[in-house]
Amino acid sequence: MLRGRFSQDTHQLVQEFTDSLDNDRVFAEQDIQGSQAHARMLGRQGIITQQEAEQLVSGLERIREEIQKGSFPWRSDLEDVHLNIEHRLTELLGSVGEKLHTGRSRNDQVALDLRLYVSQRVEEWQALLLQLARALTDQAEQHLETILPGYTHLQPAQPVSLAHHLLAYVQMLRRDAERLRQAQERIRVSPLGAAALAGTTYPVDPEEIAREVGFGNSFANSMDAVSDRDFVLEPLFCAATITTHLSRLCEEIILWANPSMGFLGLPDAFATGSSIMPQKKNPDIAELIRGKAAGTFGALQTMLSLIKGLPLAYNRDLQEDKKPFYQADVIVSGSLSLLTAMIAEMEFNPEKMLRAVNSGHLNATELADYLVSKDIPFRTAHQVTGKAVAYAESQGRGLQELKLSELQEFSPQVEEDVFRALDPYQAVARRNSPGGTGFKAVSDQLAAVKAWLESASGDG
Amino acid sequence: MLRGRFSQDTHQLVQEFTDSLDNDRVFAEQDIQGSQAHARMLGRQGIITQQEAEQLVSGLERIREEIQKGSFPWRSDLEDVHLNIEHRLTELLGSVGEKLHTGRSRNDQVALDLRLYVSQRVEEWQALLLQLARALTDQAEQHLETILPGYTHLQPAQPVSLAHHLLAYVQMLRRDAERLRQAQERIRVSPLGAAALAGTTYPVDPEEIAREVGFGNSFANSMDAVSDRDFVLEPLFCAATITTHLSRLCEEIILWANPSMGFLGLPDAFATGSSIMPQKKNPDIAELIRGKAAGTFGALQTMLSLIKGLPLAYNRDLQEDKKPFYQADVIVSGSLSLLTAMIAEMEFNPEKMLRAVNSGHLNATELADYLVSKDIPFRTAHQVTGKAVAYAESQGRGLQELKLSELQEFSPQVEEDVFRALDPYQAVARRNSPGGTGFKAVSDQLAAVKAWLESASGDG
Amino acid sequence: MLRGRFSQDTHQLVQEFTDSLDNDRVFAEQDIQGSQAHARMLGRQGIITQQEAEQLVSGLERIREEIQKGSFPWRSDLEDVHLNIEHRLTELLGSVGEKLHTGRSRNDQVALDLRLYVSQRVEEWQALLLQLARALTDQAEQHLETILPGYTHLQPAQPVSLAHHLLAYVQMLRRDAERLRQAQERIRVSPLGAAALAGTTYPVDPEEIAREVGFGNSFANSMDAVSDRDFVLEPLFCAATITTHLSRLCEEIILWANPSMGFLGLPDAFATGSSIMPQKKNPDIAELIRGKAAGTFGALQTMLSLIKGLPLAYNRDLQEDKKPFYQADVIVSGSLSLLTAMIAEMEFNPEKMLRAVNSGHLNATELADYLVSKDIPFRTAHQVTGKAVAYAESQGRGLQELKLSELQEFSPQVEEDVFRALDPYQAVARRNSPGGTGFKAVSDQLAAVKAWLESASGDG
Amino acid sequence: MLRGRFSQDTHQLVQEFTDSLDNDRVFAEQDIQGSQAHARMLGRQGIITQQEAEQLVSGLERIREEIQKGSFPWRSDLEDVHLNIEHRLTELLGSVGEKLHTGRSRNDQVALDLRLYVSQRVEEWQALLLQLARALTDQAEQHLETILPGYTHLQPAQPVSLAHHLLAYVQMLRRDAERLRQAQERIRVSPLGAAALAGTTYPVDPEEIAREVGFGNSFANSMDAVSDRDFVLEPLFCAATITTHLSRLCEEIILWANPSMGFLGLPDAFATGSSIMPQKKNPDIAELIRGKAAGTFGALQTMLSLIKGLPLAYNRDLQEDKKPFYQADVIVSGSLSLLTAMIAEMEFNPEKMLRAVNSGHLNATELADYLVSKDIPFRTAHQVTGKAVAYAESQGRGLQELKLSELQEFSPQVEEDVFRALDPYQAVARRNSPGGTGFKAVSDQLAAVKAWLESASGDG
Repeated sequence: MLRGRFSQDTHQLVQEFTDSLDNDRVFAEQDIQGSQAHARMLGRQGIITQQEAEQLVSGLERIREEIQKGSFPWRSDLEDVHLNIEHRLTELLGSVGEKLHTGRSRNDQVALDLRLYVSQRVEEWQALLLQLARALTDQAEQHLETILPGYTHLQPAQPVSLAHHLLAYVQMLRRDAERLRQAQERIRVSPLGAAALAGTTYPVDPEEIAREVGFGNSFANSMDAVSDRDFVLEPLFCAATITTHLSRLCEEIILWANPSMGFLGLPDAFATGSSIMPQKKNPDIAELIRGKAAGTFGALQTMLSLIKGLPLAYNRDLQEDKKPFYQADVIVSGSLSLLTAMIAEMEFNPEKMLRAVNSGHLNATELADYLVSKDIPFRTAHQVTGKAVAYAESQGRGLQELKLSELQEFSPQVEEDVFRALDPYQAVARRNSPGGTGFKAVSDQLAAVKAWLESASGDG
Repeated sequence: MLRGRFSQDTHQLVQEFTDSLDNDRVFAEQDIQGSQAHARMLGRQGIITQQEAEQLVSGLERIREEIQKGSFPWRSDLEDVHLNIEHRLTELLGSVGEKLHTGRSRNDQVALDLRLYVSQRVEEWQALLLQLARALTDQAEQHLETILPGYTHLQPAQPVSLAHHLLAYVQMLRRDAERLRQAQERIRVSPLGAAALAGTTYPVDPEEIAREVGFGNSFANSMDAVSDRDFVLEPLFCAATITTHLSRLCEEIILWANPSMGFLGLPDAFATGSSIMPQKKNPDIAELIRGKAAGTFGALQTMLSLIKGLPLAYNRDLQEDKKPFYQADVIVSGSLSLLTAMIAEMEFNPEKMLRAVNSGHLNATELADYLVSKDIPFRTAHQVTGKAVAYAESQGRGLQELKLSELQEFSPQVEEDVFRALDPYQAVARRNSPGGTGFKAVSDQLAAVKAWLESASGDG
Repeated sequence: MLRGRFSQDTHQLVQEFTDSLDNDRVFAEQDIQGSQAHARMLGRQGIITQQEAEQLVSGLERIREEIQKGSFPWRSDLEDVHLNIEHRLTELLGSVGEKLHTGRSRNDQVALDLRLYVSQRVEEWQALLLQLARALTDQAEQHLETILPGYTHLQPAQPVSLAHHLLAYVQMLRRDAERLRQAQERIRVSPLGAAALAGTTYPVDPEEIAREVGFGNSFANSMDAVSDRDFVLEPLFCAATITTHLSRLCEEIILWANPSMGFLGLPDAFATGSSIMPQKKNPDIAELIRGKAAGTFGALQTMLSLIKGLPLAYNRDLQEDKKPFYQADVIVSGSLSLLTAMIAEMEFNPEKMLRAVNSGHLNATELADYLVSKDIPFRTAHQVTGKAVAYAESQGRGLQELKLSELQEFSPQVEEDVFRALDPYQAVARRNSPGGTGFKAVSDQLAAVKAWLESASGDG
Repeated sequence: MLRGRFSQDTHQLVQEFTDSLDNDRVFAEQDIQGSQAHARMLGRQGIITQQEAEQLVSGLERIREEIQKGSFPWRSDLEDVHLNIEHRLTELLGSVGEKLHTGRSRNDQVALDLRLYVSQRVEEWQALLLQLARALTDQAEQHLETILPGYTHLQPAQPVSLAHHLLAYVQMLRRDAERLRQAQERIRVSPLGAAALAGTTYPVDPEEIAREVGFGNSFANSMDAVSDRDFVLEPLFCAATITTHLSRLCEEIILWANPSMGFLGLPDAFATGSSIMPQKKNPDIAELIRGKAAGTFGALQTMLSLIKGLPLAYNRDLQEDKKPFYQADVIVSGSLSLLTAMIAEMEFNPEKMLRAVNSGHLNATELADYLVSKDIPFRTAHQVTGKAVAYAESQGRGLQELKLSELQEFSPQVEEDVFRALDPYQAVARRNSPGGTGFKAVSDQLAAVKAWLESASGDG
């Protein structure tokens, strides 16, 4: 901090509260990357000599190596990572080192570093999303004809293919991937050259820097460039939708692992026991992923409340932009990785699924439809079926376990072929409308998903 | 509600708590639109006869007219808008009316209605955003050479063009518009044909319906189609970023209207007085817009917490998806409209802006740069300037008001030409790097913005 | 609005955006109550004559009657409920009516009205909380010896008394009730006499007004009095904890109503059917209560973001303080009422609960404890039990269904008395430590809860 | 982790994701404190021998010393701090060490540790709150007769005493302190003895443990005891209100430090400069405190969303309860400490405050009141004053700077004594209603505040 004007030293507490070194050290690589791009641009534009530019680039390269080797002399009295690197550069190069800051300011520099960091992490999220989608798709492929109760209101509704159920999550992830890809268009915009807030008197070339760091564009307005944090808000929102989707899947894993359902066995490697209850096999990972989703909501809310009502341009409040992103990043990366590994090893229990299908009157719709096919009006068919269900339930039997004569008491139109209609496998097979759970429809969906996964790997 | 199986009537309180008629009535138009598309598809696919399809379409048309005229017989004992319309249709058409529900369910029907509604409202937001961007651009065009203090940390930093300052907000709105456009790609996906959760046994054609209602796609997975609410989350996030941006602009309007700054006069039509303080002219509108932004954060948070941890497929919790969207819609539409009208009539006070520029030492950077141009190292120049500022401040004068001899006491290199360097108009003019505040750079930015506005009007 | 200084009429949009009449009309009663207290104080202090005071009080009484009868001439061109009443008072009383506003301002007036309103609603919440606690306690009393699986991680852990399980929720509600009671201490503070922000030159007596409206205190600082909204934040937080607690109970109701568990039958009056699935009996009410909880989080978040960073004293942003409270009030009042009615009629299924207890190895801890009682070290006992559980599970049997000889293969110390240890009823009965699930301990807890309910009814 | 039943090792990723050692290490002291209390109770109840109890207590004492000295052998393969300590205890004491876990479980143990930790941190908050209240009170005492513009809508409203303005914040802090004190009643409840969820078969004495650790009560219901996290939610809400209050004060510091207002000089030790703008003196600390408030909102939202919809009893989601509390603790403790130090050194600028008072027409209300005292009806007086203000503003003068003859043009009743009425010092002095800004009223308030501070220090 340059304090020519100040007579007192900064209060000790101040240093601790404002010291951002811990948070910022993680940006060392991005800072060097941005500074090298800046130095090259300065040279190419003739703002400094080509030789000076080369000196700066290789000095920064040496600092990169020192940091990687752990030999970099970090100093906590130098406020942050940026000052540490600048100071070291001047130690290494003498007064040439000071020329690096020509035509830029701390405000545009930190904005670039954060954009580079966010962009790289979001790229990682994109790759992890695809991995999870692949794991789900692999399981779906193995369970095309596995039937389980489809629930609405957590009540048995109609039998569905397990593949169809799992692919519902793949569709959610696909939208998430699309949102991340579009967010990247706005993240990958270089703010360097905006300087403090007003641009600079040097003939800088911001687009050149954007190209150097692999971004698509440079900023359009210098005041916006140093004060905008949409590029943090947007991935935080994506994090919230991703983890919301994962929380739903984890809720189902937790439900399915409860022995009353018993639809799946948790791989031992993803379950934990209890210190006093020897029979316990707890779905901790699924619970943690479900719980951690809440952390991304908090991060998003923090960031929105942080920015609301801030006048232009840069305000120090914005230093707090990093923590919410870190927090969300740890959750998103960890949850995606772990869920992928767990899904890959998940063992489903088709027998218990089928048992639940058979005992939950999930074929009631089929009976109603059967009656309709016998020319009974829909409302009547619906009421007749309701009574048959009530009777079957009072008997502790499924509809398919009633005798023909019993069914005929509810409607004389019922004939022997009703039992084919009541077969849950047939009930699933019949729903072959596009996007439906019929085996043919699910096969088509699976093919489309696989085609997407293949093409998406290219961008990765 | 079909209650063939139930022996008791629904509890009175239940009806009130679950009654969604008030909220849903606003969907009448969307419900009719979706039902007409569905009826046409049923006819074209031969699921019902062409004649039946036409009867359904014209019956729905008559209901639309009844609603518009206010003659529709709403019944609150029929749970919601959908049942009201269905019931009326059967009154009008007899048993043909009942065929409308063939191959669909309440779950996919309400999802389509909500998607239609959200899509239409978001279209309105897009138009309103452009209007505000235009109003800001018009003001910018008139104030290219108006100079005001650019602040960082709310401290005077460097003088900037008012046009540049206003265009910073246009850039934010431009990103918002892009996000809305991309969100529409995911909103405009028809879920009809997903039925309850599993698809249907009828040979429906979901893509046909999507085309009929003007959507780009139909659903890929029926379980996802009835339970996904990303299409509400995403516009809620857009609402949060839009209103965050507006809150920043309104904070500045409030600050600028404070007499100590006095940078603008509120148009009388947008200010209010006080019941006991006759001198008051309060920026209520700006305060309300700033305040209401918080309501969109709450709406987003509500929606995220609502969905977290819900198992597939539809759960009744999702009925609560409408209120947050309504809440955000009222805020976004109202804020954009009102701010547009207020910006259009805003009268800026260039003299007070210039006075603040001259008294805030905003040309300190210029002095430092001047010294650097005289071959003084940057750090030294920075320190020298700091001392000169401290001296000027202690004198209650600006740097440009010091005598040459006084300036020379800080550095003998200072010469007569320093006063040109210290002129704020020149300071702005010099910052012509791309995206900077220099008049030439701002003119270029203005041209780009106007080109965007023109092209965007086309999509509208 | 007093506009002596303004030359233009308020913009039409402005009126709509800022018009708070709809929200405020609900405050009519509080406004009259506060104004009557103010008028009496003015008379007693000699600021107006006793006769004038009486005229004001009875004029306000007449307005109260007009509003109750529906004959009050509401005018939407008069900004809000306060101006409507003032205007009507002057119509009725002539210039005496204008004296009502002596020594107060809109700022302290609206703060008092809102405090009165919030306080009355919170009183209602307190009563509704007790009702729900009573309904749960009544059910608990009937199910002291009903045994169900106690879950951790949604995995069967140890059998517990259903009474104990239900009383856990009563304990949560008890804390909620305590928080509401303490919040009332801070809500019931009268701000009247703070005027616009600085107090008044009239010899008003704020404590007198506080007494008149039944509040405990009057304000200590006029600037705080008109700008503080803690008294809204705090009940919003209480609303969030209350509905969070309800959401947990509703999650359990939803789980228990799933046929795989089948622990309870939803009273028909609180369940709904499906338009196409005749067997469905959906726990809509429990789902809605669970979902609506999210609305209170949003309301709290809105209110916090609204206030953050507002300078003293009143800012128009604060007009938005009512909507979040309304929103939360509807949710809290509705959820508590409905859940009380539903709990009262809930029918539990002890057989299915016992079946789940017997099949979930919930007596594994008992076996381990049994082995410890035979002097086997705890860790060894735990491991031995783990193996026995794995064996029993592979056999599809419960531990209590294994033969003595089979159990002895895991540990020769096992004897015939092991079967008494494995009996779940005994397992519950043994846990009689204070606050435990043992029948004696639960009886004690029940007695304490009933004593609290009795004493709390007194305050209500 | 006890894995007798498991065949596979825990997946590597799982360990990292679930490893809570980093977070939990901070609980070492609380864990030892709780364990010592538990051991003593076990001895006193005869569950273990007195000698064993003493061995456990002194073994734990030794571990405490090892940790303090840094010689404790932390092992990251042992899941968390609790297992590390237990394991070390057994190393030190042999099989006696294993007896410590008798009659408790991990679930009640971690709940106690967290309650101890939260309680101790909240105690620290209480002390820090009082310190800040004292610093504000000290400043108030020095500025009783310093006058500044009181703003509403950030527009000058009426002059107020700076002491009054500062004491408004003390009143907010006083409510915050009261809330913290009441929250402590619910935090300081010991859950030990609840065991896994059902209580224990050992004759434990939970109240004894509560006394040992200095808590007021022990749990009433074991299922509630292990799953309730109200005791985290409530301090998080307090953190949100505290930091909201601080954010308001910091907003004012930032505004006042802007040179257009210039009401205060930032102590150099609490301001920072700029890397390229030598004149800058930025209120970074105030900005950071304002910004960090948003972090407490996020923490509260995270915690609410985390708990919503969780069934009883313990779920692993709850492991995420610590991070939000940490996050809020760092913000609350840091903000209170730093703001106290900054307030203590703040230098106000009474001249600039007075200048703003004189130029902002803040005496308009005085003119209106003066006219009313001359028997002009209030509404007329208000309108006349509005016109006089418009005239004065057009002249660039204050009302008090107009000539008598000019004032008389607006109302012939104006006489020479108007100038005394227009004097801002008199305007403040006259508002001596209880809680008003009059010097006498503020003196009374100051005395009451000091009495509270004195009495509160006793509890600390």
